[in-house]
Amino acid sequence: MKIILIGASGTIGRRIAAAVEKDHELVRVGSKSGDFRVDIGSTESIEKLYWDVGPFDTLINAAGSGHFGPLHAMTAEDFRKGLDSKLLGQVNLVLIGQHHIRPKGSFTLTSGILAEDPVPYGANLSAVNAAVEAFGRAAAIELENGVRINVVSPGVVEDSPGYFPFFPGHIPVPMEKVAAAYVKSALGAQTGQVFKVY
Amino acid sequence: MKIILIGASGTIGRRIAAAVEKDHELVRVGSKSGDFRVDIGSTESIEKLYWDVGPFDTLINAAGSGHFGPLHAMTAEDFRKGLDSKLLGQVNLVLIGQHHIRPKGSFTLTSGILAEDPVPYGANLSAVNAAVEAFGRAAAIELENGVRINVVSPGVVEDSPGYFPFFPGHIPVPMEKVAAAYVKSALGAQTGQVFKVY
Repeated sequence: MKIILIGASGTIGRRIAAAVEKDHELVRVGSKSGDFRVDIGSTESIEKLYWDVGPFDTLINAAGSGHFGPLHAMTAEDFRKGLDSKLLGQVNLVLIGQHHIRPKGSFTLTSGILAEDPVPYGANLSAVNAAVEAFGRAAAIELENGVRINVVSPGVVEDSPGYFPFFPGHIPVPMEKVAAAYVKSALGAQTGQVFKVY
Repeated sequence: MKIILIGASGTIGRRIAAAVEKDHELVRVGSKSGDFRVDIGSTESIEKLYWDVGPFDTLINAAGSGHFGPLHAMTAEDFRKGLDSKLLGQVNLVLIGQHHIRPKGSFTLTSGILAEDPVPYGANLSAVNAAVEAFGRAAAIELENGVRINVVSPGVVEDSPGYFPFFPGHIPVPMEKVAAAYVKSALGAQTGQVFKVY
């Protein structure tokens, strides 16, 4: 199975890579490293990635950022930056990728616990994560040729201790559990699901 | 209580207006009619509205559109249009309005059933609606001076028969139930809630 993994060198991406590289043809993609480069905020860059990589079975995205900061100082431009990357970037990977993916392929996107369990400073990421999850549910009923889509929603992960102070009372999630959820989405048979890892 | 109602002449807005106009100071706002005009897609227009209206207790938004069309033909630009209006427009009403609203005031935004119950053609609106709901949950824990925020999520409503063919098996919701949810949000005491009307 040919798997495109975007964000392959990231905190979560490298664990996904380790989980699938032995048994599958893994195409590592990043913004600054990997077999191919992509800027998921750019339609042209995504188009070029798919043409360069060619037909594939599975896309896993573990890249995308949002705005994190206090509501009282937040502006529309701050908010829009998160929409452009983690929301519109991931959506566009599917909108364009649906025309390149093989039948019975799958897309796996990334949301996060803030979708339903907010913390201060997280209003943009809460919105972005919930939107990605709802897009996954909706896209699942329209994708053709048996193509599937799921979303993985990690809690704060063990390998990101810098975030711990912003998530009081959250129990950091083992990286193995997070990587397993992506494997379940990509190699399993479900569609339209949100796999919560927390 | 001084209530700003955006979308006051719309299908839902006029029912909200009828429910509150007798007992409150109602400021009707629309894109093309009303006591004041606003384009919720424009930061400058929203700023001007708040300065023109002056301090207020309650903002209710019943305006905002999304993209409705098949996934296989959807582009990033289609998707962005929905983000700019019904998502970023509503978020920006809160981001700017938090600096104009009176203590113990409230914001009430609008999502919709597609957030959790998708239909074909609705991928953009599913994402937008879920994002608005998550933003409401998150903003509720950061708004200051006792200011509240809730989101009303209507199903397909009785007064919009043009949508019925796109919502097979959905039972149209009486307008009185929809208007009541906005009244509950605006005049009640809860915050961070999604009031589902379906």
